[in-house]
Amino acid sequence: MGVILGIDPGLQHTGWGIIESRGNSLSYVACGSISTNPKQEIAARILHLNQELSKIISFYQPQQAAIEETFVNKNASSSLKLGHARGALMLTVSLAGLPVNEYAATLVKKSVVGVGRAEKDQVIMMVKRILPSAKIESEDAADALAVAVCHANHAQIRKLMGAGVRA
Amino acid sequence: MGVILGIDPGLQHTGWGIIESRGNSLSYVACGSISTNPKQEIAARILHLNQELSKIISFYQPQQAAIEETFVNKNASSSLKLGHARGALMLTVSLAGLPVNEYAATLVKKSVVGVGRAEKDQVIMMVKRILPSAKIESEDAADALAVAVCHANHAQIRKLMGAGVRA
Repeated sequence: MGVILGIDPGLQHTGWGIIESRGNSLSYVACGSISTNPKQEIAARILHLNQELSKIISFYQPQQAAIEETFVNKNASSSLKLGHARGALMLTVSLAGLPVNEYAATLVKKSVVGVGRAEKDQVIMMVKRILPSAKIESEDAADALAVAVCHANHAQIRKLMGAGVRA
Repeated sequence: MGVILGIDPGLQHTGWGIIESRGNSLSYVACGSISTNPKQEIAARILHLNQELSKIISFYQPQQAAIEETFVNKNASSSLKLGHARGALMLTVSLAGLPVNEYAATLVKKSVVGVGRAEKDQVIMMVKRILPSAKIESEDAADALAVAVCHANHAQIRKLMGAGVRA
């Protein structure tokens, strides 16, 4: 499996997490959050997301990437903003030559907590249990690690079932 | 002023238009539409938008770029899709080293038709009048040329007023 990058996208705060998957074990590598300045124009903010994520990719050299497919329950204006960030981040991953795997937020929660409608605290607690050495300083970083864990689990299942299952 | 790229963003169809501005005159260079396959995943579709727009930029070498700031009147799901396309296109323009100028759809229509709530046919007709040699084959391409014309007009005003006006 190798090194996996997980992304929890957002225009204001984008969480990122790197884990390593070997056989049945997962280990923590790094995590963090990229923030943009709301006073700047959108073009500058998404360029900042691109530059920071590009640095993370070139430093940790992940072989796989997964991004959360946030459930759209907000208004059209915030969905448009989230879309800008997601589009720019997905393009950054693609331009780095990595395939982009998308996972619904409920599936990500289910992968780490066991239920799809978990609270944020539960996600952080379970991510810390799965990756004991993780230094988590924000909810976004915890969510990003959860996305990476979700991908590792699903990739494992896909491998076992001969690529017959699709997330 | 030089060569201006106008973009009318959309995940399914993105219009693009290139015009040249010299003194008070505008001339048509090229226009078209980039379409993506709805059967493909979003990551592949925005990568296609990036690749096609990058080719256009490297062929026509615009010095300036303008993108329509579409009014959000649809539901959250279509806003999210539009956001993905816009984010990816804006990032493509930024990565090519061009500043991104945003113009509200109503301002674009006002620039070419004279009113903010113009019909699509009126936009096409007026773009043809402003750029007589334009070969327009889609509404998206006409809208993209209109965005470029809008930017040329506003850049001209900004220049005359010593950069005191902001679109």
